[in-house]
Amino acid sequence: MENGESKRWGFVANQGLNVASTFSIRGTLKMLMDAAAGQRSIIHLGQGDPSVFPCFRTSQIAEDAVADALRSAKFNSYAPPLGILPARRAIAEYLSNDLPYKLSPDDVFLTPGCKQSIDVVVSVLARPGANVLLPRPGFPHYEACAALNHLEVRHFDLLPEKGWEVDLDAVEALADENSVALVIVNPGNPCGNVFNYQHLEKIAETARRLGILVIADEVYGHLTFGSNPFVPMGVFGSTIPVLTFGSLSKRWMVPGWRLGWIVTSDPNGILKKTKGAVPRILGNTKDDFFKKIIDMFTQASEICYESIKSIDCITCPVKPEGSMFIMVKLNISLLEDIKDDTDFCLKLAKEESVIVLPGISVGLKNWLRITFAMELSSLKDAMERVRSFCQRHAKQQ
Amino acid sequence: MENGESKRWGFVANQGLNVASTFSIRGTLKMLMDAAAGQRSIIHLGQGDPSVFPCFRTSQIAEDAVADALRSAKFNSYAPPLGILPARRAIAEYLSNDLPYKLSPDDVFLTPGCKQSIDVVVSVLARPGANVLLPRPGFPHYEACAALNHLEVRHFDLLPEKGWEVDLDAVEALADENSVALVIVNPGNPCGNVFNYQHLEKIAETARRLGILVIADEVYGHLTFGSNPFVPMGVFGSTIPVLTFGSLSKRWMVPGWRLGWIVTSDPNGILKKTKGAVPRILGNTKDDFFKKIIDMFTQASEICYESIKSIDCITCPVKPEGSMFIMVKLNISLLEDIKDDTDFCLKLAKEESVIVLPGISVGLKNWLRITFAMELSSLKDAMERVRSFCQRHAKQQ
Repeated sequence: MENGESKRWGFVANQGLNVASTFSIRGTLKMLMDAAAGQRSIIHLGQGDPSVFPCFRTSQIAEDAVADALRSAKFNSYAPPLGILPARRAIAEYLSNDLPYKLSPDDVFLTPGCKQSIDVVVSVLARPGANVLLPRPGFPHYEACAALNHLEVRHFDLLPEKGWEVDLDAVEALADENSVALVIVNPGNPCGNVFNYQHLEKIAETARRLGILVIADEVYGHLTFGSNPFVPMGVFGSTIPVLTFGSLSKRWMVPGWRLGWIVTSDPNGILKKTKGAVPRILGNTKDDFFKKIIDMFTQASEICYESIKSIDCITCPVKPEGSMFIMVKLNISLLEDIKDDTDFCLKLAKEESVIVLPGISVGLKNWLRITFAMELSSLKDAMERVRSFCQRHAKQQ
Repeated sequence: MENGESKRWGFVANQGLNVASTFSIRGTLKMLMDAAAGQRSIIHLGQGDPSVFPCFRTSQIAEDAVADALRSAKFNSYAPPLGILPARRAIAEYLSNDLPYKLSPDDVFLTPGCKQSIDVVVSVLARPGANVLLPRPGFPHYEACAALNHLEVRHFDLLPEKGWEVDLDAVEALADENSVALVIVNPGNPCGNVFNYQHLEKIAETARRLGILVIADEVYGHLTFGSNPFVPMGVFGSTIPVLTFGSLSKRWMVPGWRLGWIVTSDPNGILKKTKGAVPRILGNTKDDFFKKIIDMFTQASEICYESIKSIDCITCPVKPEGSMFIMVKLNISLLEDIKDDTDFCLKLAKEESVIVLPGISVGLKNWLRITFAMELSSLKDAMERVRSFCQRHAKQQ
């Protein structure tokens, strides 16, 4: 085998199979984990996956439902590409509870999770010259998929001074006749905010005026613990067609089960013109289970928020009311030897074995995204470590 | 909402979410199922999924392994993108049993099935101007993925008169400096053939001479029941780097579990330079289970082959020795009112409620692909129906 030839397929190994992108959240977190390795026990405030903690174990009903489906041997075959009908029907009924109209199973398309929902929808929306409006900060998988599919991205800001609401003036200014969709993430990742009814209505009216589809990423749906209740964007499906993303991952604490959905909320039919485990999981899970999770998130978010208030160099403009995240502004000028958010996170990982995501990974430089979905004792420990880190690096007055 | 605007997102519904491609095997089979609907019980000789029959139920060990993993609550979290280490290690050990060297877990990349393996590898291989060499007949998902990724396809023939061996002269003639890979499917879908050691060695030597990677689709690995034992292409990994596709789907009869793998067989490191349920499933499944499956496939393939011999208008050049399929040549000139293979299959579905895939779907016009993986009584019934159909449509001598 000659060198030239071996070089010809070197790209197989380099391009796809073994290299985590340094631009992804995953890549950034891996870098921080590597920096922390070998130190004391690592506390991970960077990743939205509480299922690793025993206190966030999924409900018995969900486990039983999957075990029974497995033992029945009725679900070993290939499933239809849209998903099996009983699952789609159960999801339609579950979501219809919060809507002023009924969804049908035909509105539901199953996916192996929300990332795959994004892949599918972005690849369908992409066409030459088209653009999509994305929030900043946001979930970078949208940007990655858009780039892969040659779909232009235009960013509008979420406004911390307005509780992370959408800058609707910016949306109006950005949109043109080639804009195909507007993406919102509610409850908010990474901001932990929850849009109220009036703001969602304004988003719908804006989208209607601009003639663009709304994509509502609601993977954190019902994970709210503040004054704003969760209102699905589909409530405004009569104003503007909505594609909603959801999954079992967050509310049931089972991201590893890989079950997500894309739902069309389109009671006026503008987009149309054209039994396994899921029913039991969606239909039978007891409110106790959800309540326990929400109670823990409420306590965790308060611990996190109060700790942040007591640390000089970081401030939180909005107390989180949903999802598992809080966005925190870093005041670099108060720190001695910290260049920026990435430098802060890298040194924090090295010195304190605490993992926090730099804001730049979600689109905001010199902010931090802190995940509070963990056991309270670990969270308190982590926030103490952050405090002592900040004190140690504070500029002498 | 104005008409022009509603038209702007009509493509969302039309393009991606609800329309099965008419060019896919799935689309063709759906057309035939629709044609057969309302008639007597349908017998499906078109699809490679025996798991719907109780006699092909997966092994107890596999069921127990998944149930225990579920009950442990240790696998509810996000998995690493390459798959969890115990699963990758188990697959490396399982495959190493048949190789002259040891694979490492780092050679193994988990996917949700072989179609997704194809998606990943084709998207990695695609680059401007590149081409890939695909077998005809073959598995059309390769063509679909290549088209999506703008990777040029060049077809070489499998030769029925040589037991469906690769036409290596054609491969030599087709390949150029922009050829990135050669795909083989062994045991063969749709031909039911099994390449012998000598032929695989020649393929490896040809690929080495041409400087192209070999992609070995071995999802039917070990499902052999003829004179040629299954030899994995990875045996020739020292001659040429091999990417092997495999899965639990076929040997364990669980396509719905969605577990596949991509493995690099590259003991010389040309591509490198750079515990859940799976261990128990791969490590503990009893030989009895596999033997029972193979026995049933042997009987089924013989019933199918003998029936075909007794029907005038169809002939089978090679008795199947692997996979679940047999390719049968249709002699249209012996039939009165049948235009081609698609017409044959459509009328067969309507009149006899027997589903058979037209050869054109896998690249050979006026052939048929018959799946024999089913309960023997149904298979006999189906072949009787095919015989009476052919008699009824035979030209009067």
